[in-house]
Amino acid sequence: MTKSATTTATGRPVWEVIDRRTLLRTTRDVEVTVETVRLPDGRIIDDYYQVGADDSASVFAETEDGLVVTIGHYSHGARRHCIGLPAGRIGPEETAEDAARRELLEETGYAAAEWTFLGSFVRNGNQGGGTDHLFHARNAHRVGEPASGDLEEMEVGLMTRGELRDALQDNRIAVLAHALGVSLGLLRGEAPGR
Amino acid sequence: MTKSATTTATGRPVWEVIDRRTLLRTTRDVEVTVETVRLPDGRIIDDYYQVGADDSASVFAETEDGLVVTIGHYSHGARRHCIGLPAGRIGPEETAEDAARRELLEETGYAAAEWTFLGSFVRNGNQGGGTDHLFHARNAHRVGEPASGDLEEMEVGLMTRGELRDALQDNRIAVLAHALGVSLGLLRGEAPGR
Repeated sequence: MTKSATTTATGRPVWEVIDRRTLLRTTRDVEVTVETVRLPDGRIIDDYYQVGADDSASVFAETEDGLVVTIGHYSHGARRHCIGLPAGRIGPEETAEDAARRELLEETGYAAAEWTFLGSFVRNGNQGGGTDHLFHARNAHRVGEPASGDLEEMEVGLMTRGELRDALQDNRIAVLAHALGVSLGLLRGEAPGR
Repeated sequence: MTKSATTTATGRPVWEVIDRRTLLRTTRDVEVTVETVRLPDGRIIDDYYQVGADDSASVFAETEDGLVVTIGHYSHGARRHCIGLPAGRIGPEETAEDAARRELLEETGYAAAEWTFLGSFVRNGNQGGGTDHLFHARNAHRVGEPASGDLEEMEVGLMTRGELRDALQDNRIAVLAHALGVSLGLLRGEAPGR
């Protein structure tokens, strides 16, 4: 067995993908592949499944008054109504921040000038399943009417940090990326000027 | 078109699944189905994809000294090394809390008596992709050696809340459920007795 361990910038070995077969590719970004991987200790695993899905951007957007722009929506993945953040898939010509700005405008009618990147997170640590990119926007203000074109009916809301903390605690935020965006926004503390 | 809208306990309509076809079912819990759904406004969507994956449990476990038990690991889904929480798939005969207790013991050698449920979150709001169940454990203490049997090499660590906050900010936590577990743990404040 050849020893051709691949390493990251930190010098720690990553798993080497020796082979990859596509099992399914749908019209809606869902793709399932199975990989043959070589572990750092030399073992070969010939059936490591990977799921491809669209990458998304979500935003914790606060108004000048320190209220957070939220979306009441039905999540078919969770099979229930829940509270979430403005969010959506990143288009082929967009950066993640472009997509977050567009989704904020389309879904809520709000725009914001101050943007901070909060991080990128994979949905499934083993199988991938797409990446969520999270942002914090400040001084959001209403510039128009929502016009998302999404299948779900959406109810735009403005919630205080305390109300969002309660919603998080009561598990009324059902989608992982939205709950993380809210948590990271809450951890970052109050908006300046309050 | 018949009006047979299904509703939730809150009285708000959910999408009705009229038909479901399985496109792919693998040996490792990955399943792709395509559904025909009826929206509350009567529209029929005949290609709404759903991805099934294993449900997992993760735990933010604090020692009596207020240190959090962490795992340094390689995430093949994220294609990088990162910091995470003890976590793993829920077995067929287990509750989510059972699985969290077992993973904590297997991956780190720690056990804890005080457990609090933090919520259940779907990985993908549209396609599902499996559910992560999060827990907070207090007064964790070491009772043995780790013996996870997982493919990844894992490095058990003890981190302060400040160190975890930095790791979160620097995006060194790559997996959505782990980042949310850490965030919810940090939001819940200090362990009593510190």
